[in-house]
Amino acid sequence: MRISGRSSRRRMLGFGAALGGGLLASATESRAVDGVPGQLGIPLGPYGERSPFEKAVRWRRDTKTPETGSSFTPLQDSVGAITPSSLHYERHHTGIPTIDPAGHRLVIHGMVDRPLSLTMAEIRRLPSVSRTLVLECGGNSGSEWAVKTAPDVQRSHGLVSCSEWTGVPLSLVLKEVGIQRGASWVIAEGADACRMARSIPLAKALDNILLAYGQNGEALRPAQGYPLRLIIPGWEGNACVKWLHRLKVTDQPYMTRDETSKYSDLMPDGKARIFTFQMEAKSVITFPSGGQTLSGPGLYELTGLAWSGRGRIERVEITTDGGRTWVDAQLQEPRLPIALTRFRLPWRFEGREELIASRATDESGYVQPSREALIEVRGTNSGYHYNGIKLWRVQADGTVTNV
Amino acid sequence: MRISGRSSRRRMLGFGAALGGGLLASATESRAVDGVPGQLGIPLGPYGERSPFEKAVRWRRDTKTPETGSSFTPLQDSVGAITPSSLHYERHHTGIPTIDPAGHRLVIHGMVDRPLSLTMAEIRRLPSVSRTLVLECGGNSGSEWAVKTAPDVQRSHGLVSCSEWTGVPLSLVLKEVGIQRGASWVIAEGADACRMARSIPLAKALDNILLAYGQNGEALRPAQGYPLRLIIPGWEGNACVKWLHRLKVTDQPYMTRDETSKYSDLMPDGKARIFTFQMEAKSVITFPSGGQTLSGPGLYELTGLAWSGRGRIERVEITTDGGRTWVDAQLQEPRLPIALTRFRLPWRFEGREELIASRATDESGYVQPSREALIEVRGTNSGYHYNGIKLWRVQADGTVTNV
Repeated sequence: MRISGRSSRRRMLGFGAALGGGLLASATESRAVDGVPGQLGIPLGPYGERSPFEKAVRWRRDTKTPETGSSFTPLQDSVGAITPSSLHYERHHTGIPTIDPAGHRLVIHGMVDRPLSLTMAEIRRLPSVSRTLVLECGGNSGSEWAVKTAPDVQRSHGLVSCSEWTGVPLSLVLKEVGIQRGASWVIAEGADACRMARSIPLAKALDNILLAYGQNGEALRPAQGYPLRLIIPGWEGNACVKWLHRLKVTDQPYMTRDETSKYSDLMPDGKARIFTFQMEAKSVITFPSGGQTLSGPGLYELTGLAWSGRGRIERVEITTDGGRTWVDAQLQEPRLPIALTRFRLPWRFEGREELIASRATDESGYVQPSREALIEVRGTNSGYHYNGIKLWRVQADGTVTNV
Repeated sequence: MRISGRSSRRRMLGFGAALGGGLLASATESRAVDGVPGQLGIPLGPYGERSPFEKAVRWRRDTKTPETGSSFTPLQDSVGAITPSSLHYERHHTGIPTIDPAGHRLVIHGMVDRPLSLTMAEIRRLPSVSRTLVLECGGNSGSEWAVKTAPDVQRSHGLVSCSEWTGVPLSLVLKEVGIQRGASWVIAEGADACRMARSIPLAKALDNILLAYGQNGEALRPAQGYPLRLIIPGWEGNACVKWLHRLKVTDQPYMTRDETSKYSDLMPDGKARIFTFQMEAKSVITFPSGGQTLSGPGLYELTGLAWSGRGRIERVEITTDGGRTWVDAQLQEPRLPIALTRFRLPWRFEGREELIASRATDESGYVQPSREALIEVRGTNSGYHYNGIKLWRVQADGTVTNV
């Protein structure tokens, strides 16, 4: 190998203060950097794992009933728009069932002409589509309704994830069974111990719902409903019934637990909104965010995620002065409809306190509201469907806290 | 819950022959299907795994030196376009180094005004982009040059994978260091034991190469170059140097092992093509493919993957009669440039032998050639850059073999 001349080396020393003395002391440049040359690494393997230096995990509250609850995606460590399947958020009611796909069936019955029972092998023979879609729990960032908020973005906003889902259009199967006159709802039921069930309007079922069996290029993960899950573009995660084994076509909703006592919105006047499936435009800065520390003044990439259940993100604005002024962030293309959209902004931290936040606008023209505007309409009795603007405080010493 | 009437149940029995007698025998419909109601599942967890029923793994040849070689992505089990990071193909020369990112540096030197050494933390502060890109080994489907070919699509075509990569544009860093007059190449070197190195034309380095640290929403996997890898859109995987620790700007290529004795194309006249970085349009049917068995005549979804190093896939045609007639497959949108594109075609297997194949056309107008046309130009002395049309034989009994 040609080795560069001494003048180049000397210049390198000038710029290489951060390197320590080791870099150019060794005999050849090809051994100049890190690692031990000649020492064999790990063999090729059948199924890869992440680096032992990577520690990001989902967070959940310690509880005596770990089969029910939520676990939160570590958004502060996220890059790009896809969520690794191993870190996809979870919300379960009676744990993750272990289902052998060879014995699993999807039964479609009720107000249909030709009830059907499909094996997984039969489902996989049907025409399929793939879509990259965000999935968000209806309760995501519910802690933000209160004054005392979560300390970091994982706990405040981590019930949102994004995957490439693959499956069969539900409309295709419903056409096959023949919907009877007067039918208007579909009851979807999971094979988990509690038989979690939700009522889905038939119009949506005939629109763009997927019977998903694939996630990020492989089978669904057990925690995401293996072997079959409803994926309802733009609707709250709870309606996307996991471990799906039954669809019953009816002329009314069933008023199940998770659409009456849960996942409905108690309004200031004491009435509750129900069947509020649609997730609205939302965004959050993931770096810098609560719990992180900047190493000092200088250039950083401010970044975060935006999404909307109604379609594409058209714009994300950033404030660094608590909302007085806003500048447009760069949006990562392609901006897929109803998917996480990564936004970024080169940003110089001057070592002075700043209040930073992002504000998303979707293709319908809907603008993410401030917390105050949201509370003015909905009050603070609802734990669900919070999508207010999220402020972080960057302190002069570089530490970041919730506001 | 409202239970549907008896007439509906009776019809269901009529269609439910495949179900066995168990379905409607139990007391309530809500317990009618699989699983044991009331039995708690697995608790929520910090880091998810796939189902124990999913067995797809990378394949590699048994060898006494498992640190060098290739492992192949199980394309026959793939769905959608993303490759799970755990199943991304591997091609290593001296194993996978275990690198602590806290100690890792990228040194940029040679014919530059301001040589630079960057820590990973510094690199992650720079402006970044995400791109979903296919990565293909220059040797992928090299077995197809020979008459005796691999028995399945994993071994014939499994050295191709697709990820969402995130990183810093190399052009940005090169502008920062100041390229000197007369410079025309960049030598990229990895921190693996053999210090794998490739020469990259400066024009490409200033175009669209990424210093990638992210893959599918998290850090690069160790097998993909953790913590830093060159990702060169559209170019052979070998040039996308893993465990990148050094970039040297020069006025000539270094004629390294992997660009002279390897990854060059020996032509029929005894001369060799060198620096054939560009990967051309290619496609392969993943279902049905070699080693699979159809359960009998009937409707199936024929599906596969297409890609091109030159941009978007514009068209994929399917033949089921050995190339006499072709029909257009459906292409999954969005068709991202230089990414895997999933194609699909509803297909009725009649229980008669068929010869099936796919043919891709990219946005440059390039059409994937037949094996014969490819060999007419390049002969059979080259192990690299094979992109011929791939035929599978579906036999009358439903078994599928290579041709």
